[in-house]
Amino acid sequence: MDSVYFNAQHSPIGAFASFTLGYPGARGGLGLELRQPANQSVFIGLESHEKGVFDALPFFKEAEDEARRYDVEAPEDHQPKADAIIRPFAREAVGRKLTLASDTWTAGDLTFRIFSPVRTVPDPGFAEAEQVKQAICPAVLVEMEVDNTAGTAARRAFFGYQGNDPYSAMRRLDDRTEGDIRGVGQGRITAIASDDASLESAMAFSIEQVVAPKIPENRVFGLGGVGGLVGTVEAGERRTFRFAVCFYRGGIVTSGEPTAYYYTRYFSRIEQVAAYAMANFDTYRQWAVEADAMLEQSRLSDDQKFMLAHAVHSYYGSTQFLQWVGEERDGRPYWVVNEGEYRMMNTFDLTADQLFFEMKMNPWAVRNELDTFIDRYSYRDQVRFPGDDTLHPGGISFTHDQGLANHISRAGYSTYELFGLSGCFSHMTHEQLVNFVLCAAVYIHGNEDEGWLRINRQVIADCLESLVNRDHPEPAKRNGIMGLDSSRTMGGAEITTYDSLDESLGQARNNLYMAVKTWAAYVALERLMHMLGADNLADLAGSQAVRAADTLLRAMTPEGFIPGVMFEGNDSKIIPAIEGLVFPHLTGCPGAVKPDGRFGKMLDALKRHIDTVLRKGTCLFDDDGWKLSSTSNNSWLSKIYLSQHVYRHVLGLPWDERGRAADAAHVRWLLEPERSAYWAWSDQMISGQAWGSKYYPRGVTAILWLDE
Amino acid sequence: MDSVYFNAQHSPIGAFASFTLGYPGARGGLGLELRQPANQSVFIGLESHEKGVFDALPFFKEAEDEARRYDVEAPEDHQPKADAIIRPFAREAVGRKLTLASDTWTAGDLTFRIFSPVRTVPDPGFAEAEQVKQAICPAVLVEMEVDNTAGTAARRAFFGYQGNDPYSAMRRLDDRTEGDIRGVGQGRITAIASDDASLESAMAFSIEQVVAPKIPENRVFGLGGVGGLVGTVEAGERRTFRFAVCFYRGGIVTSGEPTAYYYTRYFSRIEQVAAYAMANFDTYRQWAVEADAMLEQSRLSDDQKFMLAHAVHSYYGSTQFLQWVGEERDGRPYWVVNEGEYRMMNTFDLTADQLFFEMKMNPWAVRNELDTFIDRYSYRDQVRFPGDDTLHPGGISFTHDQGLANHISRAGYSTYELFGLSGCFSHMTHEQLVNFVLCAAVYIHGNEDEGWLRINRQVIADCLESLVNRDHPEPAKRNGIMGLDSSRTMGGAEITTYDSLDESLGQARNNLYMAVKTWAAYVALERLMHMLGADNLADLAGSQAVRAADTLLRAMTPEGFIPGVMFEGNDSKIIPAIEGLVFPHLTGCPGAVKPDGRFGKMLDALKRHIDTVLRKGTCLFDDDGWKLSSTSNNSWLSKIYLSQHVYRHVLGLPWDERGRAADAAHVRWLLEPERSAYWAWSDQMISGQAWGSKYYPRGVTAILWLDE
Repeated sequence: MDSVYFNAQHSPIGAFASFTLGYPGARGGLGLELRQPANQSVFIGLESHEKGVFDALPFFKEAEDEARRYDVEAPEDHQPKADAIIRPFAREAVGRKLTLASDTWTAGDLTFRIFSPVRTVPDPGFAEAEQVKQAICPAVLVEMEVDNTAGTAARRAFFGYQGNDPYSAMRRLDDRTEGDIRGVGQGRITAIASDDASLESAMAFSIEQVVAPKIPENRVFGLGGVGGLVGTVEAGERRTFRFAVCFYRGGIVTSGEPTAYYYTRYFSRIEQVAAYAMANFDTYRQWAVEADAMLEQSRLSDDQKFMLAHAVHSYYGSTQFLQWVGEERDGRPYWVVNEGEYRMMNTFDLTADQLFFEMKMNPWAVRNELDTFIDRYSYRDQVRFPGDDTLHPGGISFTHDQGLANHISRAGYSTYELFGLSGCFSHMTHEQLVNFVLCAAVYIHGNEDEGWLRINRQVIADCLESLVNRDHPEPAKRNGIMGLDSSRTMGGAEITTYDSLDESLGQARNNLYMAVKTWAAYVALERLMHMLGADNLADLAGSQAVRAADTLLRAMTPEGFIPGVMFEGNDSKIIPAIEGLVFPHLTGCPGAVKPDGRFGKMLDALKRHIDTVLRKGTCLFDDDGWKLSSTSNNSWLSKIYLSQHVYRHVLGLPWDERGRAADAAHVRWLLEPERSAYWAWSDQMISGQAWGSKYYPRGVTAILWLDE
Repeated sequence: MDSVYFNAQHSPIGAFASFTLGYPGARGGLGLELRQPANQSVFIGLESHEKGVFDALPFFKEAEDEARRYDVEAPEDHQPKADAIIRPFAREAVGRKLTLASDTWTAGDLTFRIFSPVRTVPDPGFAEAEQVKQAICPAVLVEMEVDNTAGTAARRAFFGYQGNDPYSAMRRLDDRTEGDIRGVGQGRITAIASDDASLESAMAFSIEQVVAPKIPENRVFGLGGVGGLVGTVEAGERRTFRFAVCFYRGGIVTSGEPTAYYYTRYFSRIEQVAAYAMANFDTYRQWAVEADAMLEQSRLSDDQKFMLAHAVHSYYGSTQFLQWVGEERDGRPYWVVNEGEYRMMNTFDLTADQLFFEMKMNPWAVRNELDTFIDRYSYRDQVRFPGDDTLHPGGISFTHDQGLANHISRAGYSTYELFGLSGCFSHMTHEQLVNFVLCAAVYIHGNEDEGWLRINRQVIADCLESLVNRDHPEPAKRNGIMGLDSSRTMGGAEITTYDSLDESLGQARNNLYMAVKTWAAYVALERLMHMLGADNLADLAGSQAVRAADTLLRAMTPEGFIPGVMFEGNDSKIIPAIEGLVFPHLTGCPGAVKPDGRFGKMLDALKRHIDTVLRKGTCLFDDDGWKLSSTSNNSWLSKIYLSQHVYRHVLGLPWDERGRAADAAHVRWLLEPERSAYWAWSDQMISGQAWGSKYYPRGVTAILWLDE
C-alpha cells in the first residue's frame, strides 16, 4: 500500500455511527448519523523521552486560542496554561495495518489499535435479549499500548477529541457516571471512556492543557472543547490502556414515522454503553481477533483482503438498527442501511448488492428489509410503450428507498424518485421489482425459509405477473426483457441503479445489465413457483427466462459483444452484462449457469462478451482498472467486485496477471490521496478518484470472493 | 436607523430557539440551541409583474447545483427543472420596523411580519396547564401580505428555508401530519407550517424548483434540501398568508443530569406545535399588538425603544424552560437562560441583570433560578488575604453558572470557574454571593413572597455571615467591602462579571463596582433580617453598609472620582461605580438612596464621581458612547443601560443632548454592519463593534427605563 493515510470507518453495528480515522488533519472523529467524516481533531499521542514534549498521530488541527472568545482583550497570562508541547509524528514514522475487524497504528513506542465488531446480530425475534445487546452495543474498542521498557522516566499517553456537535457541550463523564467509568464526551451522543482507574479525564481549550495542565485541578474545565484521557507509564514498563468509543442517540430519531434505536431498550444513556462495552472488552477483542483470522487465512490476495476489509468497515458505518415506536408495530425491529454520503434509507438497489454480506451475517435482516418493502414500500402501476400514451396493465413493484437521513418516507413512495424524467431521479420500477424477486429468492434459499415464501406467495406471484406485463402486453410478442415503462414516470423513462452513468447502463428498457438480471429473476421465480406447487406459473417464468436468453443471443454483434442498450443503435460495451449471473447459485438454481445446461449458449455469449470488452480502451482503464462502460469514465467498485466474482466463479475465467493488476489499480483508486482517501470506502470512481457514492456501504459485494 | 439589514432574533419563550432574520445572505434561519444564527438561506419572495420572475428579500445564498452530488457526470437535461427566476430585491427598496413583539419587512407589494411572544409565563406550579401551554408553545408566527390589487395577473409568493441540521433531512410535513397542517421542516426539530389549504408545500434542490417546478408532482422530492410553502394571489386581490415557524426537541436534552423541555408535556411532535400555534394565531397576534403598543406608548425615545426591543428579542432566544426527569425532582420546572454565544446556563451575574425583566414578566422564574442555586449550586469555602496562605472562615457562596450548552454541571461547581487564576475564568465567589442576596431581596420584595424568605432564612443568614467573613476576620478591622479571596481560587484572585476588562473592573477585592453592590446587599440584608425578626443580624448588616459607605468616601480622590480598585494605586475611572444604586428601590429600601438619608454623603460622592468621569477621553468615547472604564475600550451595553437608569432615576441627573447622543451612538454600535449587525443584540463592544458576549440575553436591563 502506498500510504497509511486514508480514513477507515470503525462502527458499531446498527448505530449509524463511525469512529473514522486515518486522513491527516481534523478530518476524522466520532460521527453520528453524518453524511461524511465528522471532521474533528482526534488526539492520540505519547510523551517523548523529553519531558513535556509529546508526539501525536497527525489527526488534529492546531488549536486556535479558544480563550479569546471569552476574553477578547486580556493579556496572555490570564489564560489557563499547560506544560506540554504536542507535535505530530513524522509522516513516514507511522505504520498501519487495516484488517477486517481491527486497525493498528504504530509509531515509536506507541501502538494504537481499534477493534470493530464484525459479527452476527442474532434474530431479535428469537434470540435472548442479552445476545442481541452484546451484538449491537454502540461502541468500538481501542487498545493503546505504550512500550516504555527502554525509558528512563515515566511517560504520559493520551487519547481524546474535540467534538463539533452544534447543539451540546463537551463534558467529563466522571461527574455522574456508571460504575467506574471515566471519560469525556459530547452531549449525550459521543464519548471516549474507560474503566481504567489509572486514567485521568480532562477538558480544556487545547490538548496541551488536557495532557499537562499547570494546575491539575483545572482538568475539570467545563468550557473546554477538547477532552481526553491521560495515562502514565512508568520507566521500564509496558502498558496497555483500554478505551470504548461510544455513541448514543436516545428517544425518537426519525420524522415521517417514529422510530428509536433498537439499542435504547438496553441502554438508557451513553455511560451505560461505556460500562457495558468495557465489561465485555475481552469478548469483543476475541471476536475481532477471530474475524481477522478468518479473512487472513482465506486465499484472497493482500489487495483483495484490504478491499474487502475496508468495504466492511464502511458498510457498518451506514447500518442503523431501529425499532418502530407506537401503534401496532411498537417495538418491532427495523433494519436500515443508509446510503453512505446520500443517507437514503434501504435503497433497494443497494440492498440487492449488500444482500450477499447480510445473508452471511444476519439473514433475518434481509427478511426484515423485504418485509418493509412489502408492507410499506410496494405499489401498483400501469405501463406504456415509449412515445405512446396508451396504458397497459402493470403490477406490483417497490420504491427506490424508504427514506432519507432519519426521515422515513411516506408509504408507497421513495425520497429519490421523481416524475417526468428519463435520467437521474427517475423511477426504477423494473429494476426494484427484479431486485425484490432476487433478494427474496436468495433469502428463501439461503435461510431455508419456506415459511416466509408461503406467507408471501401472493406477493411473489404478483411479481411474476408484473414482470411479464412489463415485457409486452401480448404474450406472443414477449422477449423476456423489459419493454414498457411505468406510468409513474409520467411520460419519462425508467432508469437503473446506474443512474449517473450514460444510457449504456442508465436506461432500463432493453438494457443488457437489466436483461441478465431479469433472466436471473425468471430463473429464480421458476423454482419458487415449483416450490409453491404453482407449476403453470413456474412454466411461465421458465419460458420467460428462455425468451430473455434468446433475446440476448439475438443481440450479439459480429464483433463479439452485446450492446449496453439492445436494438436501439447503442454500441456501448459494458461489464455488468455478466452481473446477473451471480444469482442462480444463490437462489438454488445452479443448473442455470452450468456450461452444458439449457442456458449454455447464453453463457457462451456472455463469456465471449466479457472477453471482447475487457481490454484497454474498451472496458479497461490504462491503469488496468475495470471500466464498467466503454462510454463512461465513471466506474463503480462495488459492481466491479461483483462482476469479478462472476468472471472467476461463475464463468470460470482465470485470474491472471491482468486480474491482479486490476486489483492493484482498484486499491490505488481507494487510496488516491486528494479525494478518495478522505472518504473511506467509496463506490463511484471517475478515472480512479472518488467522486460520487462516497463513504459508502455497497462494497461488501467483495464478500463473494470468499466463496471462490 | 442607518440600515434595515441587521439580524434580530424571533423566539418562542423557553425553547432555546430563534428564527433569526435580517443580515444579508445565508446568515439567519431557524436555529435551535445554537451559539449563533443558523446561517441558513431563508426564502421570502413575491412574483413580480413579469410571470416567473420573483423578487425576494436578500436572505439567501445562490444555490449550488445540488443535483451534481448525485449525478456527477450527467448532462444538464437530466435534472429537475423550474420555470422561475429568483432575484433579490434592491437593497434600498426594502423597509423594516423592529418593535418589541414584531418585525415588519416591506418591499414592493410584499409585507412580511413576524410576531414574537413577549408575555408572562404563568407559574407552572399554580397555573392551569392550558395557560402554560399557550405561553410556551414553541413557535413564532408570520404574516405574509401580498397586495395584488394593482396586478393584472395572479402572482405567487413563497416562504421557505434550507435547513442545515447535520443529522436529519428536510421533509414535507403534509405526509403524516396533524389536522390540516402543511409545511416543510427538518427532522423533528424545525418547521415552517400553515393551516392555509391554499398553500402548497414543496421540496427541491433549489428555491426556483420549489416555487415553480416544471412538473408540479415533483414538489414531493424527498432529496430536496430546500423547502417552502407557495401561495397564489389573484389579480386585483390583497391577501394575507399565515405561518407558524416551529421548533421542537423531544426526549432528554441534557447531559450531566437528565432534563426535557417543559413543552414536551403538551406537544409530542412538531406537527402538534404547528397545529396549536395556527389555531391560536389570533390570540398570539393580539398579544403581540398589545405588547408593541405598550412600548410604543411609553415615553422612551425611538433609540431607546429600539434598543429595548432588540434586547428583548435576543433575551428570549437564550431562554430554555426545562423540566427535571427522573428521581425525586421528576417533572419539576427548571428555568434556564443560556448565555448567548457562550451558552453557559444561568450564569449568575447575568441572572442578576436579567432579574429586572424577569421580575416584570414571571417572578416565579427568578425564584426557580434561586432555588436551583441554593439546592445544587451553593458551596462553602474558606478565605485568605492576598499573599498570605492562612485560611480564615469563609462561608456560603454560589457558582458562576449551572452548565454549558445542554450539559448540566456537577453539583457545587460551575463550568466556567478555574483554579489558580487571577483573571478570566477565575472564581466569582464574592460577586455571586452578592448577586444571590440582591436577587433574593428583589424577588422577595417584588413578588411579596415572605414565605420564600422564611423557608430560606438560614441560607440568607449564612449569606450575611459569609459576606462579613470576606471583609475581615477581625470585626474591628472591617470596612464593609471585600478584603479576602476564596480558597477556591487556590492562591489566585477572585474576579467579577467584568472578567474581560482590565483590573479596573475585573478584580473583585477592593473593587469599586463590587463595593457599591456589596453595600446594596448589606442594605437589603438589613431589611430582610428585620423581616425575620433577627434584629442583631439586621444591625450587623446595617453597620456593614455604613462601613462600606465610609470606605467609599475615604477612597474619594481630590480629582473627584473614586478609583476602580481602591487603595491599590489604581486610578481607573469607571461608570459601574453607580450600578449598585439600582437595588434599594427594588429591595424595598428606597430610603437608602434618598439624598438626605443616612447614605446621603455616599450618594453625593457617587454623583460627583459620575460627573467627573463621564467626559470624553475618560468614560465617553469620541462618538459620545459610554465607556465603562477609562482604561479599557471594551464597553458593555447591558451595563451601560443599567447605569443610565441609575444616572437618571436614582441620581436624578438630567438626560440632555449628551445623553441622547450616547443613545444614538449605542444604536450605531448595534447596527455596525461588519460584525454587530450579524449578531443581533450583543453586549461587549470594543470601540463600537461587537466582539464578545454576542447574540446575548443581558440587554434586558433596559426594561428599567420604563420605570423612569
